Amino acid sequence: MDNLMGAFPRVLEKLHRECRQDVPSKTGAVKFLGDVVALLFPVTHGQIFSPEEIEYRWLDLMSQFRRLVSQVVADAGKRKEVTDRFFEQLPAIYADLTDDTHHFFECDPAAHCREEVVLCYPGFYAIMVHRLAHAIHVLGVPILPRILSEHAHSRTGIDIHPGATIGKRFFIDHGTGIVIGETCTIGENVKMYQGVTLGATFVKKELQGLKRHPTIEDNVILYAGCTILGGDTVVGRGAVIGGNVWLVESVAAGTKVFHKPDVG
Amino acid sequence: MDNLMGAFPRVLEKLHRECRQDVPSKTGAVKFLGDVVALLFPVTHGQIFSPEEIEYRWLDLMSQFRRLVSQVVADAGKRKEVTDRFFEQLPAIYADLTDDTHHFFECDPAAHCREEVVLCYPGFYAIMVHRLAHAIHVLGVPILPRILSEHAHSRTGIDIHPGATIGKRFFIDHGTGIVIGETCTIGENVKMYQGVTLGATFVKKELQGLKRHPTIEDNVILYAGCTILGGDTVVGRGAVIGGNVWLVESVAAGTKVFHKPDVG
Amino acid sequence: MDNLMGAFPRVLEKLHRECRQDVPSKTGAVKFLGDVVALLFPVTHGQIFSPEEIEYRWLDLMSQFRRLVSQVVADAGKRKEVTDRFFEQLPAIYADLTDDTHHFFECDPAAHCREEVVLCYPGFYAIMVHRLAHAIHVLGVPILPRILSEHAHSRTGIDIHPGATIGKRFFIDHGTGIVIGETCTIGENVKMYQGVTLGATFVKKELQGLKRHPTIEDNVILYAGCTILGGDTVVGRGAVIGGNVWLVESVAAGTKVFHKPDVG
Amino acid sequence: MDNLMGAFPRVLEKLHRECRQDVPSKTGAVKFLGDVVALLFPVTHGQIFSPEEIEYRWLDLMSQFRRLVSQVVADAGKRKEVTDRFFEQLPAIYADLTDDTHHFFECDPAAHCREEVVLCYPGFYAIMVHRLAHAIHVLGVPILPRILSEHAHSRTGIDIHPGATIGKRFFIDHGTGIVIGETCTIGENVKMYQGVTLGATFVKKELQGLKRHPTIEDNVILYAGCTILGGDTVVGRGAVIGGNVWLVESVAAGTKVFHKPDVG
Amino acid sequence: MDNLMGAFPRVLEKLHRECRQDVPSKTGAVKFLGDVVALLFPVTHGQIFSPEEIEYRWLDLMSQFRRLVSQVVADAGKRKEVTDRFFEQLPAIYADLTDDTHHFFECDPAAHCREEVVLCYPGFYAIMVHRLAHAIHVLGVPILPRILSEHAHSRTGIDIHPGATIGKRFFIDHGTGIVIGETCTIGENVKMYQGVTLGATFVKKELQGLKRHPTIEDNVILYAGCTILGGDTVVGRGAVIGGNVWLVESVAAGTKVFHKPDVG
Amino acid sequence: MDNLMGAFPRVLEKLHRECRQDVPSKTGAVKFLGDVVALLFPVTHGQIFSPEEIEYRWLDLMSQFRRLVSQVVADAGKRKEVTDRFFEQLPAIYADLTDDTHHFFECDPAAHCREEVVLCYPGFYAIMVHRLAHAIHVLGVPILPRILSEHAHSRTGIDIHPGATIGKRFFIDHGTGIVIGETCTIGENVKMYQGVTLGATFVKKELQGLKRHPTIEDNVILYAGCTILGGDTVVGRGAVIGGNVWLVESVAAGTKVFHKPDVG
Repeated sequence: MDNLMGAFPRVLEKLHRECRQDVPSKTGAVKFLGDVVALLFPVTHGQIFSPEEIEYRWLDLMSQFRRLVSQVVADAGKRKEVTDRFFEQLPAIYADLTDDTHHFFECDPAAHCREEVVLCYPGFYAIMVHRLAHAIHVLGVPILPRILSEHAHSRTGIDIHPGATIGKRFFIDHGTGIVIGETCTIGENVKMYQGVTLGATFVKKELQGLKRHPTIEDNVILYAGCTILGGDTVVGRGAVIGGNVWLVESVAAGTKVFHKPDVG
Repeated sequence: MDNLMGAFPRVLEKLHRECRQDVPSKTGAVKFLGDVVALLFPVTHGQIFSPEEIEYRWLDLMSQFRRLVSQVVADAGKRKEVTDRFFEQLPAIYADLTDDTHHFFECDPAAHCREEVVLCYPGFYAIMVHRLAHAIHVLGVPILPRILSEHAHSRTGIDIHPGATIGKRFFIDHGTGIVIGETCTIGENVKMYQGVTLGATFVKKELQGLKRHPTIEDNVILYAGCTILGGDTVVGRGAVIGGNVWLVESVAAGTKVFHKPDVG
Repeated sequence: MDNLMGAFPRVLEKLHRECRQDVPSKTGAVKFLGDVVALLFPVTHGQIFSPEEIEYRWLDLMSQFRRLVSQVVADAGKRKEVTDRFFEQLPAIYADLTDDTHHFFECDPAAHCREEVVLCYPGFYAIMVHRLAHAIHVLGVPILPRILSEHAHSRTGIDIHPGATIGKRFFIDHGTGIVIGETCTIGENVKMYQGVTLGATFVKKELQGLKRHPTIEDNVILYAGCTILGGDTVVGRGAVIGGNVWLVESVAAGTKVFHKPDVG
Repeated sequence: MDNLMGAFPRVLEKLHRECRQDVPSKTGAVKFLGDVVALLFPVTHGQIFSPEEIEYRWLDLMSQFRRLVSQVVADAGKRKEVTDRFFEQLPAIYADLTDDTHHFFECDPAAHCREEVVLCYPGFYAIMVHRLAHAIHVLGVPILPRILSEHAHSRTGIDIHPGATIGKRFFIDHGTGIVIGETCTIGENVKMYQGVTLGATFVKKELQGLKRHPTIEDNVILYAGCTILGGDTVVGRGAVIGGNVWLVESVAAGTKVFHKPDVG
Repeated sequence: MDNLMGAFPRVLEKLHRECRQDVPSKTGAVKFLGDVVALLFPVTHGQIFSPEEIEYRWLDLMSQFRRLVSQVVADAGKRKEVTDRFFEQLPAIYADLTDDTHHFFECDPAAHCREEVVLCYPGFYAIMVHRLAHAIHVLGVPILPRILSEHAHSRTGIDIHPGATIGKRFFIDHGTGIVIGETCTIGENVKMYQGVTLGATFVKKELQGLKRHPTIEDNVILYAGCTILGGDTVVGRGAVIGGNVWLVESVAAGTKVFHKPDVG
Repeated sequence: MDNLMGAFPRVLEKLHRECRQDVPSKTGAVKFLGDVVALLFPVTHGQIFSPEEIEYRWLDLMSQFRRLVSQVVADAGKRKEVTDRFFEQLPAIYADLTDDTHHFFECDPAAHCREEVVLCYPGFYAIMVHRLAHAIHVLGVPILPRILSEHAHSRTGIDIHPGATIGKRFFIDHGTGIVIGETCTIGENVKMYQGVTLGATFVKKELQGLKRHPTIEDNVILYAGCTILGGDTVVGRGAVIGGNVWLVESVAAGTKVFHKPDVG
């Protein structure tokens, strides 16, 4: 059948032979994420667990995590440390997420109960995945956090780089089209609507590692479609940035910026 | 193993023990939706059913629906009524959706047949789910309609609140980023492109239940990325709102509003 | 049970009896796509194949493709030709995609290795599916390419019509909300960010088949949220179109167009 | 590719075109069986159902059953009657099966509780499936009962024709190799061990419909590997037939028949 | 965690590292078998295929078979020959199986149609798998035929070694416990009931390759539980061997041998 | 719908409400078994594991086992002890099973390699499951060992009670219909063929816990279909019991017992 295939199979053979094996399994990462969510937010799976089942699943999550980390971290000592540290932080992450659900409920007039937030709000799903992925990112595990954040992006249209630092009680409504860059810093009680970009002014490879994305202080509201660019740009405490606003420099605390309507 | 787990398992045990059980199963809701679509639009599943199979599936859909409703509606009498009423309306919803497919085909120069609309247009999927979710919402069933609409949002990037009232022959192209708020009213023959927001001017919890989102009259065209905000804002019959336009007050019937280009 | 069902089952029976059978199976198309990707980019599935397995899968892909094509192409001779031609082109498409991964890596300061591009970048997934779908579109196979492109759209929020012509080394970052119309022509080394629209000025059914979407020349950069409309609009070689810019006429090579910020 | 396939595909095409459609789906039948068992004996599935779930599943079983019957019974009136009658009998069948579990527990010194009987005794599984299949057989539904009994045969090695009449409190231990023919009549409190055959003396097509298999009266014990043949053969009340005994004529009530050992 | 695992993981690591890879995949073999059966006997899967689907599946079967063979046959030329030869024989095997279904229907008074034979008779399943496995065995492919025959054994309790030679129109009823040894030869029109053994007198490793199992000539009937042993033992044309008979030497054509009943 | 369901749902509701929860999950037990086999005999799953994967799976097996045990053992201390003890024994069980594979290969002239034994011999599967189930039985875990042994019985037709004590190098050929009772003791190097029963003379509930089944000493051969009954019956070292022999008392070491043929 070689005539059907030409020389290409040789290329494919080489490709498979040389394929890097030190990347985490996408399937494994998504299963891990689903199992964490089922344990922390049983309402999403409509299934509650017995104490024995909870113990089993906690240990299983640790094993799954070790396996994922072992695919990208060569040093066994570091693997153990990373695992221990991540699971030590899980209670605090859970506490933050519980706060987030309260905040969502209070922010959205369309929400009828906290369970609706957990079940139906893509913004909550995105921040949940981000808080987990960010913790793994901070521990120095490569690629895995990005697989998790991209999974949330695919499901919600909300693209938060795991490197971004986000404070307590973060609220996102609708969310489609949101982009939050790697070096963003976001304070507490921030509200954000669909289509907001917190990006870099210019995108060049040489900027890798530098602060390229803005800082958003506490209590800021960012309405739909506004764009805020640049590593030196700071949106001061309590500022309100209106829909579609285009911002490339800092604004002081309490400032209200609105886009000029096309009519009226 | 308690040393591995600290006090957190106690928290999780409590959490699972106290988890609310009166929310509809997400898995069950998504299966119900898929089964409705398979029955109404066989082309999407590449499978046609015999008359006996259709009868079986119709009855099965009724049972599935009753089960979903039983999770959120405590009163047995109301459950029965809601189920009867929803299935009585299904033929009319189907008729509306058939009209929608014709309208999509006529509106988009890239469409080659109605089957392509049903198979490949995310906008059609979104309006299909909306017409079903809205009917359930109007019957007073909580949460379930939101699970359905959020499923469509996740798949299409089009976020239509089940409370929105949308007339016959609605056309959405591309669709990603569209947000249609809970108290919107949209007339007949409306066309809408990606990134359109029909939102609230301000978002406050106290506004729950009030009309916070705009009214779009018959034959209006809303081009990509335009934003229309406010419960008193009315876009009059036959108006055309250009791409990226930002609108916070009413425009009369027949008005054409365009965004000023950055060049030219 | 007829009283439960009224006359609607008769309608459904007719509907199923008359359902067109000459459309490709969505499930089959998505499986084909997944199997192509597993063969070309093993890192995405965490599984490498033996030479025998590669041979088996290559032949199986050919059979799958023939089956999909047979659902929409009635003529057996044409089916064979289409299949042969598509598989002849696969090595070149693979070469283009390899170039794209290098380009992505070079363009994004947040990328750490080419595997991360393949695993985590929705923009890469979108261009991968486009290059495959476009080849099938050019061979005159209806509907199938649209099923593939809409699958990528659903997963990434990036909507590229399979008719669009896109040159080598294309880079998309974040990507949500991007729309690239059927008659676009895009040169080499183009970079594009989320929310970019390359659309038609007016949308009318009579324009079917005409060039309705813009031309983007080599080395152009299109920042987030810019909109470029019209079949006669040409963005000249090396131009930079800033975020949120609204463009309905051509700009010369090397031009830089920026949106006026709302502050500063 | 015709040269690879010769004329055989033509044969296969004809075969598929002419395939009889009026046989019940094997997959559907096995699913129905599993769902009945999950409802009646929750311990087998480790899952208990809420009252709403029980109601849903009961109705779903009725729909499933109607669908299976519709594949083999052309007359709609008869279909309805068969369904109603089967479900009317289900409580009585359940009561018989509950009696069987008590009887198993009392008969086997190795059994520690009734749950062990339900979970671990192939003999119980076989009699459970038989009582269901026999009820369907008596209602005149063709083929479906045989699919069910053959499913139990495959799983347990116990082959009971759905036509056989079996009294209350039937006990089977181990069971592999048991064959109970179509026209057998078995009384109450009968015990039976592995490898017992209740068969026909001669097997000829002309005997279809005649009583070809033996009658076993109340309280009989049939030890492992005994063979009892013939439609006129009656094993009288309380008789004990030893292991490996070969019997082709009747024995009176209370008789004990033993096989002569090869040693001693 | 080494203290939890002791030295055993080292053993397991070695075991996995040194695991032979040149055995056929059990999962793959069982899938192949299922796909052959679905193509030849659509009634078993309740699904009929279009001509295009038949062509696709025929080619897919060839690919699957090549893959299975490639796991145990190192020489590429032999692989191709084995594949070609097996598929050339498939039409004849199918013809034999069709004859078998007629024969089953004529032999069993309990059978109501040929479809019932195909769907519900474990004996037919066993002979179907045997005719396929035997063809592969004769072509010199190791292990694969045994995986197939053992799969049928597990499902039916009928253990036919793929080396056995079996003539046209073979009938097995009930079947549990049947053993047919590797060097048996069975003629045409033979009938066999449950628990029949065609075995070796003595079992010694040194006898590998020699004829150790009996020869059964045309038109013989072997009733339930009879045992026939030895490579020189011939049961002559038209003989009838009664239930439980124990035979270690040849009987002439037309002989009737019966076991002495324990009573009467 | 109560008229469709009568009073039976009330019965079912009670049944589900009162269902015992302290039995091990059948699904969980079968998954555990499959995962043990995949780890110890990778050839059966055609998949080899990396050292990290082996570690992960070992820990996962421990978690799975603890969960199964927690369902039937109320005392947490005992649960821990049982788990530790079982996993300590696993290396020795594995060593025994390796010996068994060598023994199978040497005993059967039809076997071509040890991998064939592991892949294709139901007798090996049965002894493998028995050695695992017996270890759990000895540790005092109820029901779970019976679920495992019954799973093997269903798949192979070989019914070995987990209480039976079986020595090293045990060989079973074909195996269908074998029954080995709870209080059997079997020595080393024993060979056994299909249909052998090691049973009780009489079966009465009062005998629970007493030795009711025979003792088989080292190097005994038990040919197909022989039956040995009684707790005092001892088959002495090196004895050979011929096919179909019926034995209810002891035979001395070295004895050869044969069944009288019906012819010759």
